[in-house]
Amino acid sequence: MVDPERFLADLHTLRSFGAAEVGKGVVRPAYSEADIAARHWLAHQMRDAGLRVEVDAMGNVFGLADGPSLLLGSHSDSQPEGGWLDGALGVIAALEVARATKAAGGPPVSVVSFQDEEGRFGVTTGSTVWSGLLPLEKADGLRDHGGVTLAEARAAMAEMVTGAVDPAQFSGFVEMHIEQGPTLDATHEQIGVVTDIVGIRDMKITFEGQQNHAGTTPMHLRRDAFQAVSAFNTLLEDRLRNVVTPQTVWTIGHVSLHPNASSIVPGKAVFSMQWRDGDSDRLRRMEEIIREIAQEVAAHRSMQLSFGPMLGLEPVHMDPKLQDALVRAARVHAPETWRKMPSGALHDATNVSRLMPVAMLFVPSIGGVSHTFDEDTDEADLVVGLKVLADAVASLAG
Amino acid sequence: MVDPERFLADLHTLRSFGAAEVGKGVVRPAYSEADIAARHWLAHQMRDAGLRVEVDAMGNVFGLADGPSLLLGSHSDSQPEGGWLDGALGVIAALEVARATKAAGGPPVSVVSFQDEEGRFGVTTGSTVWSGLLPLEKADGLRDHGGVTLAEARAAMAEMVTGAVDPAQFSGFVEMHIEQGPTLDATHEQIGVVTDIVGIRDMKITFEGQQNHAGTTPMHLRRDAFQAVSAFNTLLEDRLRNVVTPQTVWTIGHVSLHPNASSIVPGKAVFSMQWRDGDSDRLRRMEEIIREIAQEVAAHRSMQLSFGPMLGLEPVHMDPKLQDALVRAARVHAPETWRKMPSGALHDATNVSRLMPVAMLFVPSIGGVSHTFDEDTDEADLVVGLKVLADAVASLAG
Repeated sequence: MVDPERFLADLHTLRSFGAAEVGKGVVRPAYSEADIAARHWLAHQMRDAGLRVEVDAMGNVFGLADGPSLLLGSHSDSQPEGGWLDGALGVIAALEVARATKAAGGPPVSVVSFQDEEGRFGVTTGSTVWSGLLPLEKADGLRDHGGVTLAEARAAMAEMVTGAVDPAQFSGFVEMHIEQGPTLDATHEQIGVVTDIVGIRDMKITFEGQQNHAGTTPMHLRRDAFQAVSAFNTLLEDRLRNVVTPQTVWTIGHVSLHPNASSIVPGKAVFSMQWRDGDSDRLRRMEEIIREIAQEVAAHRSMQLSFGPMLGLEPVHMDPKLQDALVRAARVHAPETWRKMPSGALHDATNVSRLMPVAMLFVPSIGGVSHTFDEDTDEADLVVGLKVLADAVASLAG
Repeated sequence: MVDPERFLADLHTLRSFGAAEVGKGVVRPAYSEADIAARHWLAHQMRDAGLRVEVDAMGNVFGLADGPSLLLGSHSDSQPEGGWLDGALGVIAALEVARATKAAGGPPVSVVSFQDEEGRFGVTTGSTVWSGLLPLEKADGLRDHGGVTLAEARAAMAEMVTGAVDPAQFSGFVEMHIEQGPTLDATHEQIGVVTDIVGIRDMKITFEGQQNHAGTTPMHLRRDAFQAVSAFNTLLEDRLRNVVTPQTVWTIGHVSLHPNASSIVPGKAVFSMQWRDGDSDRLRRMEEIIREIAQEVAAHRSMQLSFGPMLGLEPVHMDPKLQDALVRAARVHAPETWRKMPSGALHDATNVSRLMPVAMLFVPSIGGVSHTFDEDTDEADLVVGLKVLADAVASLAG
C-alpha cells in the first residue's frame, strides 16, 4: 500500500533543494548545485527502496527493479523560477509506488528522474537524448542563455554517472504530472487521464511593407506591417472556427515591429504563429488556412510575405492499455471527478513514446498556473493521483 | 532676381559637409564636426550676402538684415542618416532670397539655420529654446543616446557664439521645406502651401491580462493581451471613419508584448497610439473614441487598462497674410501644380509661431521618403520653390 504521508513528506523534502523561500517555489535548474544535490538525495531514496541506481551520461537518474519492469517518473529539475510540483510530483509518486510495490512483493516497478526537462539546453533535453532523438555529442554543443555548454554543465555531475540504461528492459512508461492548465481546476475535477500529447506547429511569419513617417504619410498610401498582423489575426479568429475543437489552441505570442517607434509607420513585422492539436490532420488544415490568410493579407496590402522554418511535433497518442488501467483506477478513487483530456504541454513522455507504450495522469493546477513560485495543488488531490497511479500499476501486473 | 544656379551650387556645397558618399545622403547631426563646419561656411555666406552674423548660445545661426525684417530659414543639422534637403533646402533658399533681395535693394530679409531640429537632444531643440518654450539651463541637461549632455555638445561651437538674438526684430517667419510625404509626388504637383502644422496626440496604452502556457490554456479561458490590442485596432479602424478627414492620420507604431515568447500567451501589451490632425476639436473627438474603445475591449476581455501620459501638441495655423503671398506666387510659377495642404510633420515653424506669424512652403519628396540617404527632389522643383518664396517675399514688402 502506498503511504500518503511518506509521499507528501518526500515531496516537501525534495522542495527543500533549491527552495525559493517565496511560497513553495523552487529554483532548481538542470545541473545547478541544488539540482545535483536533489539527484543525490533521490538516488539515496531509490537505493533505500531496494532499487539499483543507474545514472546515464546526461544525468538522467534511474532506480531500476530487477528484470523487465514498468517505468514510472518525470523530472526533478525546475524552471529558473519554478513550482514545487512540476516534474517533482511524478518522480516522488513513482518512488512511492515502486517502494510500496516492492515492499508488498508486487510487480517490478522502476523509477526515473529525467534531466533538463525544463530546457536549460533545449526542450526535454534528457529524455530527448535517452530516446535517441539527439546524439549526446551533438547535444553537448548546446548552450544555455549564459553561454555555458551542456558538456560543461553535465561535467558537474560526472561522478554520479554509471553508464547507459537500456530502454528495452521497460514494458511501458507512466508519467504523473500537474495539469499546468486551468481545465481540472475550473471544473473541480481531480484526475485527468491523458489521451494525447498534442502536436505543435510553430512558425515565424514576416510581413514587409514600407517604413514611413507617421505624420506625413496619408492612411491610403501606407503599407503598415502592424496593420497586416492585426488583419491576419482577425481573419484567423474567423476562419479557424469551422476547423477547430474546444481543445485546439493557437497563439500569437511574439510580435516584433520595426523600427517600433510611435512616430514611424512600421515597415516590418515578424511574429510567431503557434498552434496545437491532438490530430495531425487538423494541424495540417490549420496550416493551410494560416498560409492562405497570410497570402491574402499580403496581396491585399501590398506586403512582402515570408514564412520562417516551421517547428513541427506530431501528436503522441497514449497507449490504450495503459490509459484503460488509469481510467479504471480513476473510477475507483475519483468516481465523478475525472475526465479524459489531451495534454497541451510537452512532456518527457513525448520522447519516451518512441521507445515504448506511454501514458499520463494529471492532477489539477490551482488557478491553472505553473512555471512560477505560485504553482500549487491541493494535497488531497496529490494523494488521489498517487492512489490512481498505484492502482493502475497493480492492475497492469494482474 | 534669385539665381537658380547659385542656389543649387550652394545646396550642393552644403551637402559636401558630412557627405555620406551614399547617394546624396549626409551625416550631419547637431554639433558634429560636419555640422559645425557647415555653420561656419553658412556664416561666411551670410556675411558675403551683406548680413550681420549672430549665433546664439544654442548654436542657432542668424544672418541679420538691419532693422525690422522678415525671417526665412530652416535648419542645417541632419538625421544620423539624413537626406541632403531636409532643412538644408530652407536655409539655402533663404540665403539666396536674402542675397538677391539685398542686391536689388529690396525689403530687409534675415536668414536662420536653427540647431538640432532633428532632435539629437529632443525635438526641434534649437527653435524650442529660442522661442522660450524651454530654458537653456534645463535643455543643457538633456542627453543624446550616447549619454552626452547638450551642455557638453554645444561647448564644441562656443567660439562661434555672439549672444542672444531678439525675436522682436522679425515681422514673420517663412520656412521652405521638402514635404517628407508622398502627396505632391503622387499627384505630380510642385508646390504645397501649408495651411496648418497638424497637432499631435501620442499616448501609451497598456492592457494587462494573464500570462499563460500557450499549450495548456484553452482559448475561452485566455486573457491574451495581444488579442486585446488587435481587437482595439480593428474597432478603431471602424469607428474613426465617421470622424476623420482624408488628412487625418493615426498610427500604432510601437508594440511591446510581455514576455513576447511564442509558447506563452502574452499577459501584457504596451503600445503607442498616435494621432494627428489640423483641428483641435477633431483630435479631442478622436481621443474620446480611443479611450472608449480601449475601455470596451478591456471590459469585454477582462483586461486591466491603463493610459500613459499623453503628449499633446496643438495644431499651428499658418498666418493668412503670409499664406496668401505664397498662394499668389504659386499661381504664377506652378499654375496647375500647387495645392494647399497640412504639414503632417513638425517643423521649427511650430515653435516660431509662438513669437510671430509663420508660413511654410513645400516642394515634393520623390517617393515620399525622408530621413534616409535616398531622400531627393527634382532640381526643377527646387527652383520653382525658390521662385515662389522669392516672389512671396517681394509681394509682402510691396
